[in-house]
Amino acid sequence: MSQPITSTLDPEQQRIAGETLQDTVVDLIDLSLIAKQAHWNVVGSNFRSVHLALDELVTVARDFTDAAAERATAVGISPDGRAGTVAKDSGAIGIGAGWQQDTDIIDTIVGNLAAVIKRLRERIAATEKADPVTQDLFLAIAARLEQLHWMWQAQLATV
Amino acid sequence: MSQPITSTLDPEQQRIAGETLQDTVVDLIDLSLIAKQAHWNVVGSNFRSVHLALDELVTVARDFTDAAAERATAVGISPDGRAGTVAKDSGAIGIGAGWQQDTDIIDTIVGNLAAVIKRLRERIAATEKADPVTQDLFLAIAARLEQLHWMWQAQLATV
Amino acid sequence: MSQPITSTLDPEQQRIAGETLQDTVVDLIDLSLIAKQAHWNVVGSNFRSVHLALDELVTVARDFTDAAAERATAVGISPDGRAGTVAKDSGAIGIGAGWQQDTDIIDTIVGNLAAVIKRLRERIAATEKADPVTQDLFLAIAARLEQLHWMWQAQLATV
Amino acid sequence: MSQPITSTLDPEQQRIAGETLQDTVVDLIDLSLIAKQAHWNVVGSNFRSVHLALDELVTVARDFTDAAAERATAVGISPDGRAGTVAKDSGAIGIGAGWQQDTDIIDTIVGNLAAVIKRLRERIAATEKADPVTQDLFLAIAARLEQLHWMWQAQLATV
Amino acid sequence: MSQPITSTLDPEQQRIAGETLQDTVVDLIDLSLIAKQAHWNVVGSNFRSVHLALDELVTVARDFTDAAAERATAVGISPDGRAGTVAKDSGAIGIGAGWQQDTDIIDTIVGNLAAVIKRLRERIAATEKADPVTQDLFLAIAARLEQLHWMWQAQLATV
Amino acid sequence: MSQPITSTLDPEQQRIAGETLQDTVVDLIDLSLIAKQAHWNVVGSNFRSVHLALDELVTVARDFTDAAAERATAVGISPDGRAGTVAKDSGAIGIGAGWQQDTDIIDTIVGNLAAVIKRLRERIAATEKADPVTQDLFLAIAARLEQLHWMWQAQLATV
Amino acid sequence: MSQPITSTLDPEQQRIAGETLQDTVVDLIDLSLIAKQAHWNVVGSNFRSVHLALDELVTVARDFTDAAAERATAVGISPDGRAGTVAKDSGAIGIGAGWQQDTDIIDTIVGNLAAVIKRLRERIAATEKADPVTQDLFLAIAARLEQLHWMWQAQLATV
Amino acid sequence: MSQPITSTLDPEQQRIAGETLQDTVVDLIDLSLIAKQAHWNVVGSNFRSVHLALDELVTVARDFTDAAAERATAVGISPDGRAGTVAKDSGAIGIGAGWQQDTDIIDTIVGNLAAVIKRLRERIAATEKADPVTQDLFLAIAARLEQLHWMWQAQLATV
Amino acid sequence: MSQPITSTLDPEQQRIAGETLQDTVVDLIDLSLIAKQAHWNVVGSNFRSVHLALDELVTVARDFTDAAAERATAVGISPDGRAGTVAKDSGAIGIGAGWQQDTDIIDTIVGNLAAVIKRLRERIAATEKADPVTQDLFLAIAARLEQLHWMWQAQLATV
Amino acid sequence: MSQPITSTLDPEQQRIAGETLQDTVVDLIDLSLIAKQAHWNVVGSNFRSVHLALDELVTVARDFTDAAAERATAVGISPDGRAGTVAKDSGAIGIGAGWQQDTDIIDTIVGNLAAVIKRLRERIAATEKADPVTQDLFLAIAARLEQLHWMWQAQLATV
Amino acid sequence: MSQPITSTLDPEQQRIAGETLQDTVVDLIDLSLIAKQAHWNVVGSNFRSVHLALDELVTVARDFTDAAAERATAVGISPDGRAGTVAKDSGAIGIGAGWQQDTDIIDTIVGNLAAVIKRLRERIAATEKADPVTQDLFLAIAARLEQLHWMWQAQLATV
Amino acid sequence: MSQPITSTLDPEQQRIAGETLQDTVVDLIDLSLIAKQAHWNVVGSNFRSVHLALDELVTVARDFTDAAAERATAVGISPDGRAGTVAKDSGAIGIGAGWQQDTDIIDTIVGNLAAVIKRLRERIAATEKADPVTQDLFLAIAARLEQLHWMWQAQLATV
Repeated sequence: MSQPITSTLDPEQQRIAGETLQDTVVDLIDLSLIAKQAHWNVVGSNFRSVHLALDELVTVARDFTDAAAERATAVGISPDGRAGTVAKDSGAIGIGAGWQQDTDIIDTIVGNLAAVIKRLRERIAATEKADPVTQDLFLAIAARLEQLHWMWQAQLATV
Repeated sequence: MSQPITSTLDPEQQRIAGETLQDTVVDLIDLSLIAKQAHWNVVGSNFRSVHLALDELVTVARDFTDAAAERATAVGISPDGRAGTVAKDSGAIGIGAGWQQDTDIIDTIVGNLAAVIKRLRERIAATEKADPVTQDLFLAIAARLEQLHWMWQAQLATV
Repeated sequence: MSQPITSTLDPEQQRIAGETLQDTVVDLIDLSLIAKQAHWNVVGSNFRSVHLALDELVTVARDFTDAAAERATAVGISPDGRAGTVAKDSGAIGIGAGWQQDTDIIDTIVGNLAAVIKRLRERIAATEKADPVTQDLFLAIAARLEQLHWMWQAQLATV
Repeated sequence: MSQPITSTLDPEQQRIAGETLQDTVVDLIDLSLIAKQAHWNVVGSNFRSVHLALDELVTVARDFTDAAAERATAVGISPDGRAGTVAKDSGAIGIGAGWQQDTDIIDTIVGNLAAVIKRLRERIAATEKADPVTQDLFLAIAARLEQLHWMWQAQLATV
Repeated sequence: MSQPITSTLDPEQQRIAGETLQDTVVDLIDLSLIAKQAHWNVVGSNFRSVHLALDELVTVARDFTDAAAERATAVGISPDGRAGTVAKDSGAIGIGAGWQQDTDIIDTIVGNLAAVIKRLRERIAATEKADPVTQDLFLAIAARLEQLHWMWQAQLATV
Repeated sequence: MSQPITSTLDPEQQRIAGETLQDTVVDLIDLSLIAKQAHWNVVGSNFRSVHLALDELVTVARDFTDAAAERATAVGISPDGRAGTVAKDSGAIGIGAGWQQDTDIIDTIVGNLAAVIKRLRERIAATEKADPVTQDLFLAIAARLEQLHWMWQAQLATV
Repeated sequence: MSQPITSTLDPEQQRIAGETLQDTVVDLIDLSLIAKQAHWNVVGSNFRSVHLALDELVTVARDFTDAAAERATAVGISPDGRAGTVAKDSGAIGIGAGWQQDTDIIDTIVGNLAAVIKRLRERIAATEKADPVTQDLFLAIAARLEQLHWMWQAQLATV
Repeated sequence: MSQPITSTLDPEQQRIAGETLQDTVVDLIDLSLIAKQAHWNVVGSNFRSVHLALDELVTVARDFTDAAAERATAVGISPDGRAGTVAKDSGAIGIGAGWQQDTDIIDTIVGNLAAVIKRLRERIAATEKADPVTQDLFLAIAARLEQLHWMWQAQLATV
Repeated sequence: MSQPITSTLDPEQQRIAGETLQDTVVDLIDLSLIAKQAHWNVVGSNFRSVHLALDELVTVARDFTDAAAERATAVGISPDGRAGTVAKDSGAIGIGAGWQQDTDIIDTIVGNLAAVIKRLRERIAATEKADPVTQDLFLAIAARLEQLHWMWQAQLATV
Repeated sequence: MSQPITSTLDPEQQRIAGETLQDTVVDLIDLSLIAKQAHWNVVGSNFRSVHLALDELVTVARDFTDAAAERATAVGISPDGRAGTVAKDSGAIGIGAGWQQDTDIIDTIVGNLAAVIKRLRERIAATEKADPVTQDLFLAIAARLEQLHWMWQAQLATV
Repeated sequence: MSQPITSTLDPEQQRIAGETLQDTVVDLIDLSLIAKQAHWNVVGSNFRSVHLALDELVTVARDFTDAAAERATAVGISPDGRAGTVAKDSGAIGIGAGWQQDTDIIDTIVGNLAAVIKRLRERIAATEKADPVTQDLFLAIAARLEQLHWMWQAQLATV
Repeated sequence: MSQPITSTLDPEQQRIAGETLQDTVVDLIDLSLIAKQAHWNVVGSNFRSVHLALDELVTVARDFTDAAAERATAVGISPDGRAGTVAKDSGAIGIGAGWQQDTDIIDTIVGNLAAVIKRLRERIAATEKADPVTQDLFLAIAARLEQLHWMWQAQLATV
């Protein structure tokens, strides 16, 4: 495949930025699909709160997907966010089929957020030298996902 | 799996509505992922027009996905919009990897829209008696997708 | 009483459209009053979610009341939405007096929605031949009320 | 019925505030239903002006209904705004069935507003000592209804 | 002339949809021009109400014109909305030249709406089997025009 | 009084621009007070239309007052819009005290608009050479007031 | 002059409410004209702050003028806000002609606000028994004018 | 036909203003219909740009139509914007039937704009003495149409 | 300290208004800090509802703080809302450190609201004669806080 | 250089319009850069007022730059707004480097506005016959700049 | 106290992030209370500018307080923003009681901003390795506070 | 020149931040002027896309100019964005005079963006230690400009 978009990064920097961004695109698309799936299938006494909070998560995941994919294009790398690629490469832990109890949904979302955040933290380290512009995007994504991770955990927590 | 949501439809009506809606959910999620993929990977002199038009298609596909999935829940059927399900069951024709010429993207979108519309037309016939409420949603989806189908075709047409 | 507004419907079509619309007006006004009553009198740990969701139901019921009443006028039939008429003719199952536990409120709303939807489904069948324009309105009302019926049921459901 | 909401008012103050607010809720719901009934059934050369002005009255009546009912809950009293209660207890003078001439509608609305305002003035006096917070709400309602009373009268007046 | 836009309809379905849509485009453009003409030329004591209501009718007619014309393109048929075509083919009954009394304007609008609605009702029947997607658009247009027909009639009616 | 603001106009141009603008300020303030007076005191079957149209006239008069006064300051002339000055210098024909029949109000407004427009036309001629920038403002005021003059006349006209 | 608008107030209450409201209308119109005059004629290093703050005062004075005048109509009294009446009856202290230094403008505004507030305080006392609905409007006007009085004074103060 | 609306223009001035405005109304309605026709029938690789730009032209043409027609009423002349009049009197050069290539559409629009502008320039000269208020409207229309003329030409130009 | 802002109140009235307003400022700032503290530290199954409702309380407390403090300045009294003053003088009952269970948070908020409302009721009595303008503000604050008191209690209540 | 855009102006008219517009583009870009420079570098007790007012001037200068440049293109003349051209050809008087006292900034802005207005007045005269459409734009620019000239002068003036 | 929220940070990283965030929360709450105190108590010729600028500072301080507190929760640390904690731990330098001259207020704000910024710069250094996500928030806060520090200083500066 | 604004940076840090920010201000102003020049002078079949995209680039360049210049002031350095300075110091590669073909415009924009980004990357490295707050701004500018660089390149690319 040709490389029609040029970048100021050297090839190794470009490789690191490209791979970490591609992995982020895949994780975030999967996160958005998991959150939508949960949005539709949740039942239980906290249905309304959880149903609404899931749509906020969908919006966050979609917006950062676009940011990561367009950052990849900006460094000259073609992103791949097709269904097959997501199904194959996602680092999220997924969600079961069918109707789900609200407490189980919260567990599922906390687990998926934790998995995606953990991988993102590694990419923050990996891009610090390779491309601080890309790292700055990862910092923004991590900040928002860690905030949501707290909010979802808080629904399960007791003191 | 339990069936926690009841419906006024009889079991056969519910089965028909449920299956046609589930298939629509899958087709539309795939269409939204294909359009986003194209949105990022298109190059060529019509980049800007195509890039913007693809995001309009993404919005349409996402909104109708939600409408179809929540119609499924309304008739007591759990929808499945997970990445693996989409990758396996979609009736869209997909999109190749990597950067794509704008004219090829237009061909790809026209082809995917045609495939999705054709299946939707069958579901309009199938639900006419089974559930006119569900049929009415399919009519709305078809109206919008056929409008977009014209607009994408028009970019290729000559007279 | 004179009939100052003319219609393209023949007398029998007009009678069917008029009666089904009048019954819908009454059911929906009652539904809006029941939901407001619940909105004020609900107590319990899910107070806030239920309180807010009830106002969404009020808005839906009021908007469709207006649509149904103005569809009646459009086919030349005077609608009657006065308190006495509603108290006498409503097909909703009503709500008890005084403060109500949130879980009881959810049961009450699910029951009222189910009763109203069931009657609406009959009117969809009755108007298919008599007046498809009126039927199309009933399809829209049913689509929205069945969506709400799922959302309220989901708060009670377990899997 | 239990009294789950506490108040800083003493029992007699609470009784006065509660009764005047309950009566106001009932009058205002009836006023909103009468205005909607008129909104649909008015005919005559001033149809459009009257039709639009009635919807403004509906909005006013609905908003103050909510304010009065939630003021009742705030002083620990469960409000009752069900159709049967409204049909039985309203102090408004009502509206006839069927299509109505625009000049008759204006008469009807002026009469209903006058009746509701007169009762409200008594409640302003009754709550001055019992609960000035509740009185302040009645002052606001009276101010708006008396403004509308002028506007509706002005359509009938000659000089 | 070439046919650059394809459709899922068979030729006969396409013919029926195309002809009914073309006729609708012409009727609605004429209706918008008639309403604008009336908007400028009305005089009389109800000038302001009629002047404003006519612009609402213009907006409705323009929006549905676009919807019908783009539905024609969506089924592969080129719509024709040129002045000469409208002048020649419109099914509306038109409006006289020069200043017009407000009561005459109301009569004129009621008559034009009745003519357009009657033709639309025939197209609803004609497209039921040929193309339910197109029929659904006609149902929406009829619902709105019949509502306006009531409102304009109501200005002339007495009881 | 000192002249703290300078202008590119020569003294004679400045005198002409200043006097015509000052006269316009006074006429327009009076017009806004007359229209508000009418807005409050109108009665009759067209109360609502006239009441609303008068507030549109108030807004127009106020906005152009500000434009004319600030144009005066821009050419170095202090404008005077005090109540006493308006009472003494206005070229409008005024309005009687007390409640007024709607038809009389319309006559009064048509007369005041005609008087103000006539004076404005003279100022358009006077400023053509003296200051085309000021003339351009007068053209804009005349265009809007003449439009309103038609609309108010149209309420009285018969054909 | 006839009295076409009725009121629930007895004649003496109506007289008190009417006179206090009429006086308030006149004071507030004059205040709005004084503030506009100042808005145009202020010069000095604080021009921009003072110029902007004066327009906020104009808006406040205009809005409360309308509220007071329409409260007069609501109690059946015709308000008089004509230029001659304002010039003759206003209790404001006025403003000099021509360009004014910003510090002098502030003094002028503080003085006018103080005069208007003082008269308003008397009307609050006068209407307490006569008409608490009218008094409540005077309380709102006083609250806002006293806030502005502080803000204008603060520009002159030293500590 | 009677002349129910008076004007400050003398008969000859009124004749000139009336005729130039009537001609402008007709040209602009035709321009709006031509642009809509093009909006629906354009095909080719620049479909989306041209399709969107045409709707901007429609909006411009419609807004100025209304301005010109209401300027005619303001000078006492009844405007005529009916389909037959437009078909007969328009100075635009029109558009062919059926689907049109995007480059042909651009040619067509440039030609129509040029024709309409040329006629408008003559009306600017004709109204300079007769009615500068009307001329000022023509200047505004010419300014906008000449801007659009550049933009449409620019799509065809090479350097 | 000097007293740079004058008031129409006599010294004793000013003292009463000033003290009650200062105490209100302190209570409301503390209420806003308590609600923010709770907003951050709440955990439990109702996290989302409570978290959101607390921010509404913060907004209410902040807005009324500003209103009370600026009412103090309007009567010539310098308000004191510094952290040390709040910590020393607040009449609220406070909140414990660290993470808090949602049910405990609700108890805490109900208790703080009750304490603040009780003190406010005393100030309503104290200012009735001293300054009805200030009393009117306290009535508005009490109305809103008592509404919130019901809503928070309702989350704990059972029937 | 080729002339790809045609105009209805004859060559001499086009030359005059083109030269006056080009000079205006250059003056206004320089004015916008001078105002931004002042916006950043102003210090002194009126910092905030001056800083904000400068951004309003920037917006005015930018908007009119675009209007003048696009008017040049509309008459077939290529505008030149490049930094080097502005630095070479501007008729503004410029601004010194480094931090500037607020009173000096006001002097500088008044001087630059006066210089630009003076040149604009000459262009108004020059284009009266050559192109009244272009002249109309210059009138609008002059009106706004002269208003700003007053406002900036007013900050320096004493009476 | 239990630690119900988990984090991907190791204990030492968590300790550093938690302490720096807690200190930031306290500083920013105090800054918001100081700015509000100044907002109410400022007098002098620049009252309006300073009064408005202080509310912008309040908004900035409140928004970053929330961001810092919710970042603390996101890393598993309970923030403490209670009045007593702020009074005890704040690193801001505070503000005196009573009315304050505008120039003194500016000095006070510059001093408080400088103190808070200085501490923030240390936290930027401390978190670079411990948690770059938290550091990124401190960079954003510093950027905005340093901008405000310039703006407040600029009001005191001379050149 | 005096240095009226202080900073927490030491002199060497301040020098680095100041120089990199000044250079950025100059580059971005030039970029905005180049993009505006292109916006006006582009011709060709992609006129509309390019014309609109250039205005987005202008907005980006202007917003970041302001951010960089105000960051310079925040660290105590006076920025210089005057036309002469831009003409002399800009690192952009510029644009030719006169009408330009759309494809040439795209080349020109890609080249200018590449030149500006390259210099920005060096400043990111230079400020990492000197001032991470300034670096964070450069990261944000680079992220956006590199995104635009991709979008403009994409219009030229083939695969």
